[in-house]
Amino acid sequence: MHTLWDERYALRTDHIGSSAIRELLKLTSLPNVISFAGGLPAPELFPLEKFKEASDVVLSEMGERALQYGTTEGYQPLREMIAHNASKYGIQISADNVMITSGSQQALDLLGRIFINRGDRVLVESPTYLGAIQAWNAYGVKYVTIPFDEDGMQTDLLEERLRTGLKFIYVLPNFQNPTGVTLSRERRKQLVEIANAYGVPIVEDDPYGQLRYEGDHLPPVVVMDDEIRAKEVPIYSGNVIYTSTFSKILAPGLRLAWVVAPEEVIKKLVQAKQGCDLHTSTFNQYVAYQVANSEWMKSHILAIRKTYKERRDIMISALEEHMPDGVQWTHPAGGLFLWVTLPKDIDTRTFFKSAIEEKVAFVPGGSFHPQGGGDNTMRLNFSNANPDLIMEGIKRLAKVIEKNI
Amino acid sequence: MHTLWDERYALRTDHIGSSAIRELLKLTSLPNVISFAGGLPAPELFPLEKFKEASDVVLSEMGERALQYGTTEGYQPLREMIAHNASKYGIQISADNVMITSGSQQALDLLGRIFINRGDRVLVESPTYLGAIQAWNAYGVKYVTIPFDEDGMQTDLLEERLRTGLKFIYVLPNFQNPTGVTLSRERRKQLVEIANAYGVPIVEDDPYGQLRYEGDHLPPVVVMDDEIRAKEVPIYSGNVIYTSTFSKILAPGLRLAWVVAPEEVIKKLVQAKQGCDLHTSTFNQYVAYQVANSEWMKSHILAIRKTYKERRDIMISALEEHMPDGVQWTHPAGGLFLWVTLPKDIDTRTFFKSAIEEKVAFVPGGSFHPQGGGDNTMRLNFSNANPDLIMEGIKRLAKVIEKNI
Repeated sequence: MHTLWDERYALRTDHIGSSAIRELLKLTSLPNVISFAGGLPAPELFPLEKFKEASDVVLSEMGERALQYGTTEGYQPLREMIAHNASKYGIQISADNVMITSGSQQALDLLGRIFINRGDRVLVESPTYLGAIQAWNAYGVKYVTIPFDEDGMQTDLLEERLRTGLKFIYVLPNFQNPTGVTLSRERRKQLVEIANAYGVPIVEDDPYGQLRYEGDHLPPVVVMDDEIRAKEVPIYSGNVIYTSTFSKILAPGLRLAWVVAPEEVIKKLVQAKQGCDLHTSTFNQYVAYQVANSEWMKSHILAIRKTYKERRDIMISALEEHMPDGVQWTHPAGGLFLWVTLPKDIDTRTFFKSAIEEKVAFVPGGSFHPQGGGDNTMRLNFSNANPDLIMEGIKRLAKVIEKNI
Repeated sequence: MHTLWDERYALRTDHIGSSAIRELLKLTSLPNVISFAGGLPAPELFPLEKFKEASDVVLSEMGERALQYGTTEGYQPLREMIAHNASKYGIQISADNVMITSGSQQALDLLGRIFINRGDRVLVESPTYLGAIQAWNAYGVKYVTIPFDEDGMQTDLLEERLRTGLKFIYVLPNFQNPTGVTLSRERRKQLVEIANAYGVPIVEDDPYGQLRYEGDHLPPVVVMDDEIRAKEVPIYSGNVIYTSTFSKILAPGLRLAWVVAPEEVIKKLVQAKQGCDLHTSTFNQYVAYQVANSEWMKSHILAIRKTYKERRDIMISALEEHMPDGVQWTHPAGGLFLWVTLPKDIDTRTFFKSAIEEKVAFVPGGSFHPQGGGDNTMRLNFSNANPDLIMEGIKRLAKVIEKNI
């Protein structure tokens, strides 16, 4: 007889959430499906030669250290490089303000671990990043949501939400996942001022900050926050915890990201991480440092921007050409995603399977709404498929939508 | 003014535990200290050339996949290799019974996550592995301890402990960390029979199973358990969750380990892992597979055994030569550690700092006892330092002990 472990041993399931979306997404990897569902970088842009050189240098010159256990905080030169780069954006931090994590997902998990007691409230944009919802559900979080428009989260609605008592505010200011929308400069300012006044920290998730395809760079929230108290406080002691990643500018297979935070927060994160995975792969940190700590990195980021801008433009043209009336989409200034809104009575889940039959995939937007809603929306990724596939995929998708609208 | 985040934002600290031991251990990396404190493999045994070849093959022939996002379960060929190797030891499992984790520490964390509700009881040997205590403290576990002798946990005391209600039993049967003691065949049998009768699962942590230096290989607990129901159950549905690692046989800097469990448990672990770090580094999994999936691996393990056996023997000789009367130690048949017991009234913490001044380090044994005790014990690692340093280090340590006994 088949042992029913779940029931036999009362495995915890409270924190894991529905796997419906996971089951759906398995279908997107079926053969010949053009998938706009993932958040995958274009693999043809991975700098394979650079990685080969770097692996060789690391193994030849420092192999015994690179393959040994390392510190939980991360590889010191990599932390210093990140601190140094941050100073270019206008915040003065040291390596002590930086912890390396096993991907941004781990940063989100560890933040949940040190901040969230069962029942604590966290403010998220609606829609927001699925990985954050998944990470924090494990800690019994309650979500307070704030709507967004074409300038990002509606900060004029922030104060009334803060009065409900929040542990922190989670924001993706640049080319948000899933909508592609960017938080305007005015709203960033308003966000940091209100959060600072209420003493509620902000978690700024910025995986795509360097992937802007048009318009001016906006200062990260962490920088605008720092300006508020830079005059009075000699060392970095911001109200913002910032996280970013090498996944989109180097390669996600390395699982390398980082957190910038006040030193006391870093210490707590380090203690939590020690229980979770001791430390992030030493080897990968050494290799990434070799690759990233060079002038070449700039040209590499320019090359990624060029390719993704082209793909975004092609996807938007294709949407304009093929989509029936009543379908709208965002025009992201960067990142990997755009967001499609259908007429109100349409539920994009209902035709997901028809789309798979037509060999095209998307993510139904409902999944990104922690408190429901958004059934008539979908997320499309434009970084992974090449231009021909984007055109063909949007054509197929338009056909499916037309049938279901 | 310096922002006091801890107080200002009420960061969780309940689950993190004392950092006293962590502060102590920082001292062990001071220059010229001969450290028997860590659990580090000998870096001169890392197969750097093999890693170079493997990285080259991976990046040249499958770089685009190796650097891309991967599945949470792990790299399929690696899972298959592990399943195949397990069948050599006598259990019939498939890749579906295997999940790759970011080091064994993550396996322990994830098991805590799916099993432990605040207040649940877990049985551990006393002393037991520090990393397990640290992982499970985060979930509000209560420990029930079982004493050990030279044949491992005293299984004749198991039933009365099972009657207190246990979520699972945690055991390190081979060359236990910290004591170096091995669970005898008779006790393994008793353990699986009693656990099976009570329906309480066993978590078998086996990082050193392949590093035996004398005596006969004993079947893993997972195999002995499987024999109980092999006749009635056609597919693997054991009562034991088994975990092992590449850290000691390849390199810890890769952060690669695995869990073997019934498929339903693997599914739950996968869901939990998805929220924690999405997946383990694809690149490292590809590289490790290239290195490990070859005949060469056997000779590599033989070479590690040879070196560590020599170091164990040298440490034991040095202990015999230098230690004063009243000091005892275990004679591990494998693994990385041995366990020293001083007369009852001695607390090894009290002379830790004198030892550091004499440039030698150990881990005070109290830290491995989740419910106190063991103050007169210490753990010594014999894998990391070379023979000359082992002899010199034990001489220094004996001098310190002599002064304090």
